[in-house]
Amino acid sequence: MNVSDLIERPAGKSRYLEELSIGERFATRSINITEDEILDFARRFDPQPFHLDPSAAQRSIYGGLIASGFHTQAIVFGLFIELGVLAESSMGSPGMDDLKWLLPVRPGDSLRAEVEVLETRSSLTKPDRGIVRLRYHGYNQKGEEVIAFTVNHLLKRKRV
Amino acid sequence: MNVSDLIERPAGKSRYLEELSIGERFATRSINITEDEILDFARRFDPQPFHLDPSAAQRSIYGGLIASGFHTQAIVFGLFIELGVLAESSMGSPGMDDLKWLLPVRPGDSLRAEVEVLETRSSLTKPDRGIVRLRYHGYNQKGEEVIAFTVNHLLKRKRV
Repeated sequence: MNVSDLIERPAGKSRYLEELSIGERFATRSINITEDEILDFARRFDPQPFHLDPSAAQRSIYGGLIASGFHTQAIVFGLFIELGVLAESSMGSPGMDDLKWLLPVRPGDSLRAEVEVLETRSSLTKPDRGIVRLRYHGYNQKGEEVIAFTVNHLLKRKRV
Repeated sequence: MNVSDLIERPAGKSRYLEELSIGERFATRSINITEDEILDFARRFDPQPFHLDPSAAQRSIYGGLIASGFHTQAIVFGLFIELGVLAESSMGSPGMDDLKWLLPVRPGDSLRAEVEVLETRSSLTKPDRGIVRLRYHGYNQKGEEVIAFTVNHLLKRKRV
C-alpha cells in the first residue's frame, strides 16, 4: 500500500473538542514510501540533490537518497487525518511548531504515526469551537522515531 | 507557470554559512496554484473536505476550496530552494518552528516568498558546518502574508 492510497481508507469515529482527553494517543496504519514518490515530491517542492538525484545523494552526508522532510511530515499528518478522528470537527489550523527531523527516511521505508493530545482549550470569544494541540510522532519499520511536530487544530465543540 | 515547473529554473549564486548576513532577505518569483494541484495534494496528504471537495468546501467556514497548509508550506519552501542560495552548502535540516497559517490559499491564487536570515551559528564540534535560521514568508497576489515559518538549515562553511 502506498501514499496515494490514503484517501481510500474508511473513516473512524469522529471526535469533537470536548471528546478528546489530554494524554490520549491514536495509532495509524503504516505505509511504504517508494523512490518514485520521493523523487516526485522533491521535483515539485524540494529540489535538493539528496532528495532528487540518487547518484548525487550517494556522495552526500546521507550516503543515498532521502525523502524531503516536508514529504515525511505530510505523510505522517495524512496518516492521522485518514483515521477520521477529526472528520466532523476539524475547522483547519492556525499553526504548527517544534518540528524535529530526527532520522532520514529512505526509499522502501515504511512509516506509521502516533498522535497524542497535549492540550485542549475552548475559544473565549466563539463558544462553538476551540483549539486542540496534537503532538505527531512518525516511526519507521524499525520503530525508530523519524519526525515529531505539534499542530494546533481548530475544532468544533459538540452541539448540545 | 505552475508548481511542477519549479525544477526547471536555473540556480542563483550559492552561499556558504559565513556568506549569509543577519537581516539579509531573498525574494522569489511567484507561481500560480491550480485547483487540480490543490485536489491532488489533498488526496495524497490531507484528505479534509475543505481541501478535497469543492461543494463540501462551499459549506465550510472557508466558503470554498482552500489549499492544504502543508501544500502552501511546501510551495513556499520550494520557491526559495530553486533560487539556488543553498545549492552548494545545504546539508539538510534538523527542524522547523513557529509556523503560522495566516490566510487561506485558494485555486487561482499566486504565491511568492521572501526569506530572511534570522541567525547564523557555527557548530561547536564540527568546524566545517553550522546552522542558519531562515524565516520564510509567503505572500499572495494581493501582497497579503498567507504563511510564515522558520527553518533551521544545516549548512557547510566555505573551504579555505
